[in-house]
Amino acid sequence: MNLTTTQLLINGDRLNQSIARLAQIGKLDNGGVKRIAYSQEDIEARNLVQQWMREIQMQVRVDAAGNIIGRYPGKYPDAPALATGSHIDTVPCGGHYDGAYGVLAGLEAVRVLQENRLKLDRSLEVIVFTDEEGSMIGSKAISGRIINDSDYYRRPDGTDIQTCLTRVGGSWNNIAQARRSPNELAAFVELHVEQGPVLESMGKQIGVIEGIVGQRRFNITVKGSANHAGTTPMQMRCDALVAAAQVVLAVNQIGNTPGQQVATVGKMKVLPNAANVVPGWVEMSLDLRDLSSLHIDSLLKQLRIHLEEIAVATDTQISLNPCLHNEPALAEPYIQQAIARSCKNLQLNYTYLPSRASHDAQELAQITDMGMIFVPSKMGVSHDASEYTSPEQCIQGANVLLQTLIQLNSEKSLKS
Amino acid sequence: MNLTTTQLLINGDRLNQSIARLAQIGKLDNGGVKRIAYSQEDIEARNLVQQWMREIQMQVRVDAAGNIIGRYPGKYPDAPALATGSHIDTVPCGGHYDGAYGVLAGLEAVRVLQENRLKLDRSLEVIVFTDEEGSMIGSKAISGRIINDSDYYRRPDGTDIQTCLTRVGGSWNNIAQARRSPNELAAFVELHVEQGPVLESMGKQIGVIEGIVGQRRFNITVKGSANHAGTTPMQMRCDALVAAAQVVLAVNQIGNTPGQQVATVGKMKVLPNAANVVPGWVEMSLDLRDLSSLHIDSLLKQLRIHLEEIAVATDTQISLNPCLHNEPALAEPYIQQAIARSCKNLQLNYTYLPSRASHDAQELAQITDMGMIFVPSKMGVSHDASEYTSPEQCIQGANVLLQTLIQLNSEKSLKS
Repeated sequence: MNLTTTQLLINGDRLNQSIARLAQIGKLDNGGVKRIAYSQEDIEARNLVQQWMREIQMQVRVDAAGNIIGRYPGKYPDAPALATGSHIDTVPCGGHYDGAYGVLAGLEAVRVLQENRLKLDRSLEVIVFTDEEGSMIGSKAISGRIINDSDYYRRPDGTDIQTCLTRVGGSWNNIAQARRSPNELAAFVELHVEQGPVLESMGKQIGVIEGIVGQRRFNITVKGSANHAGTTPMQMRCDALVAAAQVVLAVNQIGNTPGQQVATVGKMKVLPNAANVVPGWVEMSLDLRDLSSLHIDSLLKQLRIHLEEIAVATDTQISLNPCLHNEPALAEPYIQQAIARSCKNLQLNYTYLPSRASHDAQELAQITDMGMIFVPSKMGVSHDASEYTSPEQCIQGANVLLQTLIQLNSEKSLKS
Repeated sequence: MNLTTTQLLINGDRLNQSIARLAQIGKLDNGGVKRIAYSQEDIEARNLVQQWMREIQMQVRVDAAGNIIGRYPGKYPDAPALATGSHIDTVPCGGHYDGAYGVLAGLEAVRVLQENRLKLDRSLEVIVFTDEEGSMIGSKAISGRIINDSDYYRRPDGTDIQTCLTRVGGSWNNIAQARRSPNELAAFVELHVEQGPVLESMGKQIGVIEGIVGQRRFNITVKGSANHAGTTPMQMRCDALVAAAQVVLAVNQIGNTPGQQVATVGKMKVLPNAANVVPGWVEMSLDLRDLSSLHIDSLLKQLRIHLEEIAVATDTQISLNPCLHNEPALAEPYIQQAIARSCKNLQLNYTYLPSRASHDAQELAQITDMGMIFVPSKMGVSHDASEYTSPEQCIQGANVLLQTLIQLNSEKSLKS
């Protein structure tokens, strides 16, 4: 094989036709897509993708977690493989691009290699991960981070995970076998729509992802005293909502200190929640994300001090209870550099940014070197029928993926 | 008749026994009372009170609004009468004192006069008002402020007002006849438990009410933009809850400016209310009360300016929509003075304060001179089984009522 990295380009029409074709499965009247994991639509889409893989002589298998693994063998099939991929399940009213785009761009990269009768040194895998929008059971099985409790994976509709996995060709009892060894995979690169407004607002074509942010989630409760809103003088109140309002602003202040973190109170419940009663109890969520765990720890420390001050000043009790803790997953610098080089070669402008949403790549980072590529989302919208990335933008991202995989093929940092 | 004002005292045991007896009707397992207007329990209680009135030779009638009017004729029965009274209906889980205490203390005052064969110059009326805890239809019919729309008075359970009033001896079709002329009533004095913590916290035995506060209620809506809490950077958000938190604090600040006003956000709804979504919409209540309408207007003007500043700073839209407007009802200074003199004569300590809850007296103030007397509520609690005013405190308040009525009997400010 003798590839100049700027020579090979994907077939843009074929890519966009594939995206449009897959979006027919589970198509909603509003233009959106409903292709919930394990549903008939999901199964139909899985079958189509496997058919497409086989048409280009990929070796296709479904592992115990239902992940579809299409392999395009390299010249040295025993060397650790390069991998790309994403998911094809959607939220109940999703769009055409979230997940599906990454899978189909990976497929398109192989199509171009195959029709040019090119092989990389390493085998190239395109992986379709199971249930990204729900449990992320597919990528977690590959990283070996499955929780050994089938009830944990029971679906919201009550279906047990055994039944679900059997539907898609997996097996709960054998799920440990889905785990991949670090020796099998040299690197994983996921291409995805941004699902946020940063690239569009900056006028950038490509996002080089620095990592997937860590996420901590807490329940904050404020205990005051419920009292008659007429007969209780201001100075005799312990108003839980007045305290909670200060908490919301403290969280927002933490979010706005220098750094790339985001901090959000998205959910709030007031009790007894009547116009003529001073609130006695407020519950709210706190969601805090950043690429650095140390930075999150430092922000939380500041916040706790602030919450104590608010509790004293408002004569309330405030507690902060953790309910989710995901560590950040950093992208390897050499993969970021390969993506950036690909952008330069393709004359696409790019920026570095963190991914503040979860992706299967964060699980793959547990067992191999990880990188991610983003393309813009119109208005930052995702998980909605109006989710949109233009055909041109889809082509640009897929070319960056192809070029990046080709560059990584000869990357010295990779495991051999 | 020749009464020295400090001579006559009520029979405390008889008063407290009456309170305990009435509390048997609708008694709940938790010690509370359920005697909802027009219910079988309400009717039973009405019958008992009428029986008690008749036993002391009061002239009893039920008007078209179902109000029970017991009249103890004076020496000059054609002169405008003095009146007292309150209500005997309760909230679904009420206590022994709210309303019932004022009715039974009025009855006790007449009992004392009657057993001492004393007549006032003016007739003395004890009025039991219909449905104070709901529509206040009884006192509103007397003041002539009934809304001419029977649907408005339909009960939460769907029962129409015609049926309800018929049950208690009234008649919707004739309700206009319940209106009293200012020439019939010289003054109205209502004795009530405070339902708030002020008297207890100040260590005062009696509250001399300056008036019943005006109340304005508003819906405040904040429109921002719902966005993914992960992928939307802080500086690109229009977070409706961050704006709403500032509104809550602005309302609290208005409440804490010098004055006797109270200002409360008691109710809040956040949309979409999910931990991982920046809130796009918040609705909340504003309840604002003060004795002076001008003062309320001035506070609202300050608040509107503040809300505009918040909307600009947070890039949201904030609107303030009125949904309730009750004007204040002021107590006549000469009645306040008569109450204060009675306290001094009885060696009870007292303070002046506004009533920040609604009472039938606010309607009576529309047609005659009004005054109110408060006794302490333990911990400020009302509308609950734990509502409590001690037997001693009940006796003190009833003696103040009796003495006040006796003083008003010879008050020169009164209509003759």
